[in-house]
Amino acid sequence: MDFIAFHAPHPDFLEKTDEGYLASLYLPEELKLEQAWLRSEPDNEEYLSPMQLVKNEEGWQIWQGILRLNTAEDITLYCFKLMIAGQQQWLDARIKPSPYFSERDFHFRLNPHIEPARWLWSQVFYQIFPERFYDGDPSNNVKDADYLYEGKPVVAKSWNELPDRRQGPREFYGGDLEGIRQKLDYLQELGVTGLYLNPIFTSPSSHKYDTVDYYDIDPHFGTKETFALLCHDLRTRHMRILLDAVVNHTSERHPWFDRYGEHGSSGAYHSTTSETRDYYVFQSDDAESYHGWYGVKTLPVLDYRSEKLRDIVYRKDDAILRYWMRPPYSIDGWRFDVIHMLGEGSGALNNAAYVKHFRQTLREENPEAFVLGEHFFEASKWLQGDQEDAAMNYYGFTAPLWFFLAAKDVRMHGLSIDAKDFDHLLERARIKLPFEVQLSQFNLLGSHDTPRFLSFVEGDTALMKIAVMLLFTYIGTPCVYYGDEIGLEGLHDPDCRRTFPWDESQWDQDLRHHFKTLIQFRKSSKVLQEGAFISLYAENDVYAFARTAGKKIVIGVINRGEATSLQLPLNKLPIKLTSLQSLFDQQEHPLDEALELKAKSSMVLFN
Amino acid sequence: MDFIAFHAPHPDFLEKTDEGYLASLYLPEELKLEQAWLRSEPDNEEYLSPMQLVKNEEGWQIWQGILRLNTAEDITLYCFKLMIAGQQQWLDARIKPSPYFSERDFHFRLNPHIEPARWLWSQVFYQIFPERFYDGDPSNNVKDADYLYEGKPVVAKSWNELPDRRQGPREFYGGDLEGIRQKLDYLQELGVTGLYLNPIFTSPSSHKYDTVDYYDIDPHFGTKETFALLCHDLRTRHMRILLDAVVNHTSERHPWFDRYGEHGSSGAYHSTTSETRDYYVFQSDDAESYHGWYGVKTLPVLDYRSEKLRDIVYRKDDAILRYWMRPPYSIDGWRFDVIHMLGEGSGALNNAAYVKHFRQTLREENPEAFVLGEHFFEASKWLQGDQEDAAMNYYGFTAPLWFFLAAKDVRMHGLSIDAKDFDHLLERARIKLPFEVQLSQFNLLGSHDTPRFLSFVEGDTALMKIAVMLLFTYIGTPCVYYGDEIGLEGLHDPDCRRTFPWDESQWDQDLRHHFKTLIQFRKSSKVLQEGAFISLYAENDVYAFARTAGKKIVIGVINRGEATSLQLPLNKLPIKLTSLQSLFDQQEHPLDEALELKAKSSMVLFN
Repeated sequence: MDFIAFHAPHPDFLEKTDEGYLASLYLPEELKLEQAWLRSEPDNEEYLSPMQLVKNEEGWQIWQGILRLNTAEDITLYCFKLMIAGQQQWLDARIKPSPYFSERDFHFRLNPHIEPARWLWSQVFYQIFPERFYDGDPSNNVKDADYLYEGKPVVAKSWNELPDRRQGPREFYGGDLEGIRQKLDYLQELGVTGLYLNPIFTSPSSHKYDTVDYYDIDPHFGTKETFALLCHDLRTRHMRILLDAVVNHTSERHPWFDRYGEHGSSGAYHSTTSETRDYYVFQSDDAESYHGWYGVKTLPVLDYRSEKLRDIVYRKDDAILRYWMRPPYSIDGWRFDVIHMLGEGSGALNNAAYVKHFRQTLREENPEAFVLGEHFFEASKWLQGDQEDAAMNYYGFTAPLWFFLAAKDVRMHGLSIDAKDFDHLLERARIKLPFEVQLSQFNLLGSHDTPRFLSFVEGDTALMKIAVMLLFTYIGTPCVYYGDEIGLEGLHDPDCRRTFPWDESQWDQDLRHHFKTLIQFRKSSKVLQEGAFISLYAENDVYAFARTAGKKIVIGVINRGEATSLQLPLNKLPIKLTSLQSLFDQQEHPLDEALELKAKSSMVLFN
Repeated sequence: MDFIAFHAPHPDFLEKTDEGYLASLYLPEELKLEQAWLRSEPDNEEYLSPMQLVKNEEGWQIWQGILRLNTAEDITLYCFKLMIAGQQQWLDARIKPSPYFSERDFHFRLNPHIEPARWLWSQVFYQIFPERFYDGDPSNNVKDADYLYEGKPVVAKSWNELPDRRQGPREFYGGDLEGIRQKLDYLQELGVTGLYLNPIFTSPSSHKYDTVDYYDIDPHFGTKETFALLCHDLRTRHMRILLDAVVNHTSERHPWFDRYGEHGSSGAYHSTTSETRDYYVFQSDDAESYHGWYGVKTLPVLDYRSEKLRDIVYRKDDAILRYWMRPPYSIDGWRFDVIHMLGEGSGALNNAAYVKHFRQTLREENPEAFVLGEHFFEASKWLQGDQEDAAMNYYGFTAPLWFFLAAKDVRMHGLSIDAKDFDHLLERARIKLPFEVQLSQFNLLGSHDTPRFLSFVEGDTALMKIAVMLLFTYIGTPCVYYGDEIGLEGLHDPDCRRTFPWDESQWDQDLRHHFKTLIQFRKSSKVLQEGAFISLYAENDVYAFARTAGKKIVIGVINRGEATSLQLPLNKLPIKLTSLQSLFDQQEHPLDEALELKAKSSMVLFN
């Protein structure tokens, strides 16, 4: 049996009332329904709350019932059981009817206790790798052979040179915080409302993921005063800022570790009685027995069994995570590097406890602080409301786009999927998250850790523009990787960390215009920021979806293949529509006829 | 891309070596494979361990690699990534190749720390509802109107009367422990090796899920001496015994609660200062504000916030759970009633902590004690090795059989599925459990809480025999509900609790013979007890599977529909076969020709 239905854990369909959460289920008017129940497990046992038909509207029959909430856990999972012609049908978050009860993983989920950072939803973030964005103060630049990095001299390069794989972390172009500050007009003109900066604390590498001082700005990026000024200017412009918290490991050269005796040899490496010995994971008394991140010995892993380390990272009054959240910096949140790997000993033991402590710490400093986790793979268990607000959404957004539009994974291994698979990949990630987290998920097309999207699609700007359209219309909070907007290319690290070409003749103005159009539309559209999500169509090369809130609708359509046409399945929408406006060609499209889809194109339609 | 592959977390395919667990992946010899990796997340980050082609055997190419284990968690999830003609293919526990990486839920899972009750796997259990099995001592029978139950007189009924819905828990037939003892020859002749008894402690109802004394045998069932004698006789016969632990709630008439002042009114109900007040969940000082199981006020729920309650249930030296595990009883394990609902307050708060305490307690008393949980729905989270050994497998066994063979759920609501769905329902439950738990899962065709299977299929013994065949050949430990073997019928409680008809003229001897054949075969077959599981075929009305260990194979085939034939997909088996023996007709079946399947029939083939 197949029929269309709709429900989402969105306030339009799951309303908080005095009696509890009132769930509305939309079913086609012509469906002969005998009974309906709302199923949940408030005390781990099944309860079927009866539902009633309350009204017919816009071609739908709407059934409602009160959801019984779980009392022992934050999350309540629920689904619907229907009786039609004596046969049962179940509806879970995948919406498609099934004759049997599905696994809990697929049920709708509500966390009534969640406290999202709501301000996120209206943001457009921009990720900057500071060493490569703009050199605002050449006086602080790294000089050629200034010092050794991993035994080799650092290299000063000119802005127009390409990064070199053999030099990676020891090549420097001069980008700095003053540079970012000088380009705020550029960013605001693009429409950006928030920055996410890769690490800026003292570190000998160009990427700065190997910290040697968490309490100071790297001298080649500026000073604490420069950073305070940048934060001040951002605040004046009502812009937000996130920093990168690299607290899973330090540099081998951090004074706590001091591998090379640069800091008086009192560090953990030198003695089992070192005051900071227990900050790190040593398998034995042997100095070399320490655990490095992913086996990399230059990055000794921190051990959260250490009470003193916990004090420094998040507990004491001027703990690292607190320090930068206070004036004059007052950053809006932290992006936590490899947060899933962090914990006690070498294997992320008690990881959840520390992530919860981090969340609590950030929220103590700022009740709306953003807790963002770096996860390359599925991060559902960090995203149920008690740990992170969002993850860098490689799993639920970027990777599906790579697969569908570029037919490759991040290792550049080939794979072949169609729109049905693409829909499934987006859906499987989405439905495991509370709705508020779906809205917060940090969507990106690439980062300092991946090839740029334009390079993924081998410079095909038509495919890139499809991806950009999804970035700003798919559910979640968008983040632009610096330079993507003007068509910067780059393969794997360090190629994806090329300098931003400020010579406008090198810019793809059409692509930049596309970004600006979509950013502006996103910022004006509450539906895109907070609306429910409906998958409308997924066959072969074509995928269509809707965002909906109240009577407002935005529909996105993408076609990765040859020109074709699509009759939108309007019966999947909660309201009746006869025509919609198109964002790109600014025309009114009647919906009783098929949409003409150009080859490798996208459409955004709205009312 | 589609191809056949095989791996299971079974010692044949995942061997413990000095270097770690060596995983073997079987792929068709003709498949052109460029590379293969074993993927796991030892510290929550992806590691791809390279695999090598080590040999070609029986038409397979066998690739091997060492699995990197998770160090912070008991469970290691893993899957395989293959490169074929430049395209990636992934294999998870569903075996079917996919172009993309699946959700963790579907990965193979290993718990190297698991301590299963291995003796389980060779058992054939038999569930007895003691009040209805056999009256061995008429002197202890409940007499008509002997006392009131829920305000109404109890009813003494003659053995041949049917249960009456209106009398349910207050009708008594006289079955008792002495009755069970006298029928041990019968049970052993059937092939039974272990008993699971519904509650036998003092309680006013016939079902005894409302306990009034956890330290005594109900006087109508016998005495502690009778029970000790039964246990002694079972031991003499090398038979096992499980009891029912109802420690989520008590009777309202338990002295701790004493709703009716039968015990001096010092119970929790009577005063906020009662010594046992905190054993129960009261919302306020109001005596009536207590929480009843599933809202039923006759069954006040226990509150594990109470230290004293924890002492009595599992901590102190003669705690309830310990007492019956010691001589002269020395029971082999407990089946925990509604264990998922148990915890602090009214909503199962901290449930996992108590289940872990229960496990630890039982294992302290007996390192091989069986911890069995009652769960009507998915219980994966209780079954990862640290809580229960097994669940009553309604979710992963009984319900799929109801759906496929009876087209109904337990509420008798219709549904319609085919063999593909059936395969999916079995698989989805299986793959979320470590292999040892799959072997331990307590498979049943029905219980005191459900209609009997024969009644589910409306008396169709052909369908019943298919179900029985699955009970003894599917992965897991089988349990027969008393009377099913002679064709006893019965719908919902109390009808499913009819007395056992000892008049053999009422027995379905053919059905009993079928049980005996299968029980005997199961007991002689290590493959059925401990073998890996392979799904072979699932289309329309026909389902086929294999169990395999070393060079031994058992194949099960069922056909719920009209007569048809089936060519077994022999290329899915790890070894090459030319013919197999058939259990039911005792003939040798050549495998190069199709099997003839009679209407509504099953086959068991083996080498």
